[in-house]
Amino acid sequence: MLDKLVIIGVGLIGGSLARALRDAGAVEHIVGVGRSQANLDVALKLGVIDAKVDDVAQAVEGADVVVIGATLGATGAIFEALRPVLGPSTVVTDVGSAKSRVVGLASQILGERSKNFVPGHPIAGTEKSGAGASFASLFSGQKVILTPLENTRSEAVKLVKAMWEKTGATVVNMSAEEHDRVLAGTSHLPHFLAYALVDTLASSVDAEEMFRYAAGGFKDFTRIASSNPEMWRDITLANKDALLIICELFRKRFDALRTALEAGDEQAIERIFTSAKTARDRFVVQE
Amino acid sequence: MLDKLVIIGVGLIGGSLARALRDAGAVEHIVGVGRSQANLDVALKLGVIDAKVDDVAQAVEGADVVVIGATLGATGAIFEALRPVLGPSTVVTDVGSAKSRVVGLASQILGERSKNFVPGHPIAGTEKSGAGASFASLFSGQKVILTPLENTRSEAVKLVKAMWEKTGATVVNMSAEEHDRVLAGTSHLPHFLAYALVDTLASSVDAEEMFRYAAGGFKDFTRIASSNPEMWRDITLANKDALLIICELFRKRFDALRTALEAGDEQAIERIFTSAKTARDRFVVQE
Repeated sequence: MLDKLVIIGVGLIGGSLARALRDAGAVEHIVGVGRSQANLDVALKLGVIDAKVDDVAQAVEGADVVVIGATLGATGAIFEALRPVLGPSTVVTDVGSAKSRVVGLASQILGERSKNFVPGHPIAGTEKSGAGASFASLFSGQKVILTPLENTRSEAVKLVKAMWEKTGATVVNMSAEEHDRVLAGTSHLPHFLAYALVDTLASSVDAEEMFRYAAGGFKDFTRIASSNPEMWRDITLANKDALLIICELFRKRFDALRTALEAGDEQAIERIFTSAKTARDRFVVQE
Repeated sequence: MLDKLVIIGVGLIGGSLARALRDAGAVEHIVGVGRSQANLDVALKLGVIDAKVDDVAQAVEGADVVVIGATLGATGAIFEALRPVLGPSTVVTDVGSAKSRVVGLASQILGERSKNFVPGHPIAGTEKSGAGASFASLFSGQKVILTPLENTRSEAVKLVKAMWEKTGATVVNMSAEEHDRVLAGTSHLPHFLAYALVDTLASSVDAEEMFRYAAGGFKDFTRIASSNPEMWRDITLANKDALLIICELFRKRFDALRTALEAGDEQAIERIFTSAKTARDRFVVQE
């Protein structure tokens, strides 16, 4: 289907996409670009990519699709590097966890070529990073959100949609604003909480003692605190506005629980716990 | 080893203890007591217990060990029921997630018999409840904390320790205060955060939309919010003092993150994220 795919940032997401498309026979040639030669060498050795190329112009020449899999903080610089070398029909997409800011950068930097840019976000991942952590089934049965702009070419959207469907994912469209609000609640705030909790315990005088008795529930709860700090710094900053709003709502809920605890208010505590359990059992789990 | 074991509250923990001891050939006869006849019937049907008995005096007659597996809020009433009927050598232990309050109740209510009470807490569990959710391997490779008092008979501690070791658990002793501080950080606060997060999202106008895009990380992070609300209401109230202290420390960390986000302070965000990841990778995971 694709003759040439370029992946800029062959990490967990970019690498898993490459593997899935190759397994599906949906791509002929995969070129990797990235700032870490060591990571690109791993990707080459594992057969995730066919070639690594330093020069962006050379890399994207004749490419059908360029996937930006790098950390969000690098997106602006990557757009700058792409602008003068992108062919008129080369489609560009990304995998960033915050979309409004990327959309703004694309319009601003890519100019006319932004018609070929399809903002995307696969709702999948693990706490691991790098090409070595990638695996072909990461997107199977998962959702990919695309947030095309009004001026995005429909052929570009179709191509990116078809590409993701080859990985076993379901593709849905929504606005960048809606995406950012949903992800702030279900992903960015949870990361904030997990990082803040683990850092709170790590800063206590008896941190080792604390963690020695951390069992299964704690491991699950804090797994996302083992995620890449630089990547998550970029994500939270890129989705600052939506994240601050949900942080404020959360803090009110948390303070209500603390106040109820302080007052020994059994009913108030049970009401919040029950509301949460009911919602999770209804919406989240069919495990 | 044990001729007669009584379990008051045959839930996930009490039921799993019964199964593990039976599998290990460490008990002859297991009697279940509880407020839910339906749950006791499930326990009987699954062979978790040999008999259910309504009358506490009859149930504990000739018992080697009585395990209190009920929700923490019921502990006082159970001590009241046990006081007049406990034999002089029957050992009593519990499995509650908060110990100082239980210890106080035991001294106050059990009087002289409190010498035979060994406060205990297996650091194991799932988000499920009831005898139907119990399984024999729940404690295998896990830790059980005992918090004996100065006047606790050493033979009683030995017996409870030996009982738990038959389940494959490692038994450690510490003070009730230390236990409560450690558990506030690694278990009670995480439950507070998970419940508060899910309730925050459930209260948003587009809750269904939110939860539709909640992927693996969110499921893991919020699993504990599917825990029994009544049980967790009791636990958090029973460990109120230690929990309020760690809540306050957490809130400061969380507010520091929000302030850094608002100010766009990349260094501050990355510092907290990195500190958390380093601590988790070092202390918590060898997954």
